[in-house]
Amino acid sequence: MLLTFSHQLIYLFNYLIFNSLITMKQLFILMLLLFSCALGNAQQKAPVGRMPVNFAEQEAIVKKFTNSFDSLTPMQQIMFFTNVKHIMDPEVTKIEPGKIDSDPPSDAIDLFNGKDLNEWEEVAWGRGGPGGKKPITWIIKDGGMQPSSSSGSAQTKRVFRDFQLHIEWKTPTGLPATVTGQDRGNSGVIIQGNYEVQILDSYSNRTYRNGQAGAVYMQYAPLVNPSRKEGEWQTYDIIYTAPRFKDSTTYFTPPRITIIYNGVLVQNNVAIQGPTFFPGIPQYIIKEHGDGPIQLQQHGNPTTFRNIWIREL
Amino acid sequence: MLLTFSHQLIYLFNYLIFNSLITMKQLFILMLLLFSCALGNAQQKAPVGRMPVNFAEQEAIVKKFTNSFDSLTPMQQIMFFTNVKHIMDPEVTKIEPGKIDSDPPSDAIDLFNGKDLNEWEEVAWGRGGPGGKKPITWIIKDGGMQPSSSSGSAQTKRVFRDFQLHIEWKTPTGLPATVTGQDRGNSGVIIQGNYEVQILDSYSNRTYRNGQAGAVYMQYAPLVNPSRKEGEWQTYDIIYTAPRFKDSTTYFTPPRITIIYNGVLVQNNVAIQGPTFFPGIPQYIIKEHGDGPIQLQQHGNPTTFRNIWIREL
Amino acid sequence: MLLTFSHQLIYLFNYLIFNSLITMKQLFILMLLLFSCALGNAQQKAPVGRMPVNFAEQEAIVKKFTNSFDSLTPMQQIMFFTNVKHIMDPEVTKIEPGKIDSDPPSDAIDLFNGKDLNEWEEVAWGRGGPGGKKPITWIIKDGGMQPSSSSGSAQTKRVFRDFQLHIEWKTPTGLPATVTGQDRGNSGVIIQGNYEVQILDSYSNRTYRNGQAGAVYMQYAPLVNPSRKEGEWQTYDIIYTAPRFKDSTTYFTPPRITIIYNGVLVQNNVAIQGPTFFPGIPQYIIKEHGDGPIQLQQHGNPTTFRNIWIREL
Amino acid sequence: MLLTFSHQLIYLFNYLIFNSLITMKQLFILMLLLFSCALGNAQQKAPVGRMPVNFAEQEAIVKKFTNSFDSLTPMQQIMFFTNVKHIMDPEVTKIEPGKIDSDPPSDAIDLFNGKDLNEWEEVAWGRGGPGGKKPITWIIKDGGMQPSSSSGSAQTKRVFRDFQLHIEWKTPTGLPATVTGQDRGNSGVIIQGNYEVQILDSYSNRTYRNGQAGAVYMQYAPLVNPSRKEGEWQTYDIIYTAPRFKDSTTYFTPPRITIIYNGVLVQNNVAIQGPTFFPGIPQYIIKEHGDGPIQLQQHGNPTTFRNIWIREL
Repeated sequence: MLLTFSHQLIYLFNYLIFNSLITMKQLFILMLLLFSCALGNAQQKAPVGRMPVNFAEQEAIVKKFTNSFDSLTPMQQIMFFTNVKHIMDPEVTKIEPGKIDSDPPSDAIDLFNGKDLNEWEEVAWGRGGPGGKKPITWIIKDGGMQPSSSSGSAQTKRVFRDFQLHIEWKTPTGLPATVTGQDRGNSGVIIQGNYEVQILDSYSNRTYRNGQAGAVYMQYAPLVNPSRKEGEWQTYDIIYTAPRFKDSTTYFTPPRITIIYNGVLVQNNVAIQGPTFFPGIPQYIIKEHGDGPIQLQQHGNPTTFRNIWIREL
Repeated sequence: MLLTFSHQLIYLFNYLIFNSLITMKQLFILMLLLFSCALGNAQQKAPVGRMPVNFAEQEAIVKKFTNSFDSLTPMQQIMFFTNVKHIMDPEVTKIEPGKIDSDPPSDAIDLFNGKDLNEWEEVAWGRGGPGGKKPITWIIKDGGMQPSSSSGSAQTKRVFRDFQLHIEWKTPTGLPATVTGQDRGNSGVIIQGNYEVQILDSYSNRTYRNGQAGAVYMQYAPLVNPSRKEGEWQTYDIIYTAPRFKDSTTYFTPPRITIIYNGVLVQNNVAIQGPTFFPGIPQYIIKEHGDGPIQLQQHGNPTTFRNIWIREL
Repeated sequence: MLLTFSHQLIYLFNYLIFNSLITMKQLFILMLLLFSCALGNAQQKAPVGRMPVNFAEQEAIVKKFTNSFDSLTPMQQIMFFTNVKHIMDPEVTKIEPGKIDSDPPSDAIDLFNGKDLNEWEEVAWGRGGPGGKKPITWIIKDGGMQPSSSSGSAQTKRVFRDFQLHIEWKTPTGLPATVTGQDRGNSGVIIQGNYEVQILDSYSNRTYRNGQAGAVYMQYAPLVNPSRKEGEWQTYDIIYTAPRFKDSTTYFTPPRITIIYNGVLVQNNVAIQGPTFFPGIPQYIIKEHGDGPIQLQQHGNPTTFRNIWIREL
Repeated sequence: MLLTFSHQLIYLFNYLIFNSLITMKQLFILMLLLFSCALGNAQQKAPVGRMPVNFAEQEAIVKKFTNSFDSLTPMQQIMFFTNVKHIMDPEVTKIEPGKIDSDPPSDAIDLFNGKDLNEWEEVAWGRGGPGGKKPITWIIKDGGMQPSSSSGSAQTKRVFRDFQLHIEWKTPTGLPATVTGQDRGNSGVIIQGNYEVQILDSYSNRTYRNGQAGAVYMQYAPLVNPSRKEGEWQTYDIIYTAPRFKDSTTYFTPPRITIIYNGVLVQNNVAIQGPTFFPGIPQYIIKEHGDGPIQLQQHGNPTTFRNIWIREL
């Protein structure tokens, strides 16, 4: 019978303890005795010419992990003997998920639940830029929030770094068939004032592949096109990791985004190249930024939004 | 008025074309004339000591992208002039999403829809190992598929590489309060025969943090704990990128996994370190493998599964 | 002749300008005229139901890049027309390389050039730990710096983040053949007080593969073993990217290291898993840290060092 | 005295063995006895309702790692008890480094050592393209290999995937001061027929920053400019990781490159965006390829090369 000693030793003590053949306390004391004995012998026989083992250093490291054995919970004591790879602390935070998966879990910030626009302010048309902020003029209609014809884009008052965002949207019905391409239901979710996830009626309205719904606008076409028809509610579940900067114009790590569109993966942790920009090359306009808001683009179409919640990561 | 020439030039032609001031064909011919003229002059005046521009080479490159202008669709012709970053082809594949986001979209493979177990076979208890396969002995009960007391683990007959997987599960009710930790509702989703996403009743049943529901077993604790109670249906949405190998025992890129648990992100594209292994260090047991099945672990608990679908990426 | 319009247009203007068929100024004015003309027409004919192009926004973006055309250098003006991907500014910093490649370039900090130990202080034996600092007691001998028998480890007074480090070292001669494994010429380069690149006489002295010269100690064996004999000078060229932290015990990005050992690549941008630790699992002892010193380990062997220089990245 | 049990246990056995208080064989037998004893008891007392531990499975895993203890070398036996993280096998391949670091180590392929051009053939001017191959017409002159005025580019007959490449080059002297920018000493090292590391006289000859010596042409400017004067020998040490492909036009992982230029880091594992292309956007011309040659570009300048060697990784 051939055994990996260290694995089997751990295995042995599992058995001894789980089957009550020995108490943990007995085992602990036994090992201390064995250790003390070895230590005593070792110190008497420290061989010439070899570095003495730095017990003080070793103990200092050990103390970081243990403190008093008696202060551990019984489960922690079991883990202590079982395998150092069983990590007990800190306990993972318990939250309550939504009643259904699209509902906000208990640790989400509710950005719009159909009742009020308190989380929002307004900026100028388009991707905003340096234009001033003003009170929100969007309206609640058709089961969601939407811009009036004179509104600018809606923007959260709060700012965010890394997050998980759930948002539902529908594009307007009744547009004539001659309204096509980027003119048909165009809006967008603009992250940290810089990076746009395109919204468009892409059900049967072909445009450039990197400009349709589910695209990181101008940078990444969606993997597939799971669009629903105009006037139907659609969902984006977005996982976003903000960039970290090396200096004022260079990413240390670029922004990364995963997008699930109507339950279907359309972007898988892609690296955003730079700010969304028409029609330039985004790498050349990178500019260091901190946490930023979520913006819902007013692009001349009364796109409606509902059930918007976000979890900071 | 100061302008970035190349941006504004593109802008200009947008205007000319979109507003019908000039036809694309006219513009195309105009540019050819200008180009030919310049080319003629250039060739007459090719300066001594400079390399001649390699027009043949340039043209060869150009031809890769264009072929006949007349063969393009009108929309492609617009794109052709508008901005090279507008990519038309290939068209993004249109699929139909599920009626609700947890339903299988039209490009999913239905692994279990409540009716039959045709996609499944059975392997020995645990993480399978080299044991032989046999016909599935799981049963359909409680609205899903579950092992009988003598069943082994269920395993798909199909094998997969990169995928998006949706799966719903519930742990058994009625276990006595004395059944705790890893003994309470233990099962798992084992990917490519190697990498286990833990299933456990983690609602109010503390265990080691890297062994609870939502964990990549022994490697990554979930970011938060959004568990529902025993007997309630819970969901995993898993995005998995298979490893690529440098040689027979080394990853070129490790497996990566994103897990959304009851609508909440619990793993964000983490790099799996190696095969799930109790209690060892996974890096030392990496072994090259190809596509592999999805396995549902029989761990002595009648965990029930339903609505299982997968999309190959 | 079929052409990619935008490529060929740029190509055309290259020709016109490089061959003096037209001045840049003329070209610039020509384009402005064309643009103004188109703009005038466009504004008269702005079609009903389409969003007006936001010229103010577009211009604001453009202004970020250009400022006055006349203020550009002639070369910049050429680049301006040639291709936006030709980036002129900022000019790449000119430095002087060493006379030979192992000599310090002009932007390096000279940590030891054979003359004095002014850049160094001393810490307790081993990987330092919380022990206090004291003046350096190392000596200059055998063409380099080495510990006396009572010395601790040497540590730079300066701290560093990302860097390129050149260091030369030799292990002692005259050790009896019975001194083997980790006892033979053991030292190390410890980065930011946490991460050890092993130094050892590994010419014909086998030890565990992740503990020999060129290893990231306990984590990564070298790709090959290009060791020279004891008493011969050997070189490490190390490229190190410091970790960035997500929180106090978690890396956002891990430390990364490339090592060229005697001119041979032995580590290629590997991700360090955590602090070097004997014999534990480094992921569990990650602790947020800032910039840190370079330490040369005194491990009971009079290893000698010379020609140490570093460039901050 | 508070101890991490598993660490101290390993520590204890180190002591017992290193100080000859017990032989490894004795220790091994002792543990087997303890284990057998525990196992016997455990099997008699297997508690109702718990899964039996799968010893057969556990042993199968263990056997993968161990085989016969007696067949191990004494050093391996020590390692066996000391810490599973000490990895002995396979032994790291011993190679001989060059006499100086720029000389080829023993595992390098010598592509040009000053004597013959046997490793080379020739392709058309520029980045080659589809032009046919022909026998090399370069000449050996000025201490290296250089194109004659009618030569095309030189290309290795061998193809490579991941590699470390050392190459030395000098640009021609005697060019008039009026020859500037891209016309001054232009050549390049083209990797796998697709990705160009620029060669240029960049000592005091400003051009666009992403087109000077040390640049990944058109994509990444060098971090600093450590150029030597025209006519002086300069070195590139290049570490290249080839792309892996997801499909015929998409990278699974992009090519990555590290460049040390005259001993100075100028590119640190940057991700190449796509094939080098003038003046387009490389992402749109990605095309799946396998291993490829190294090409030395003939760009109308008699650039000279020497001491070229490569190590496959």
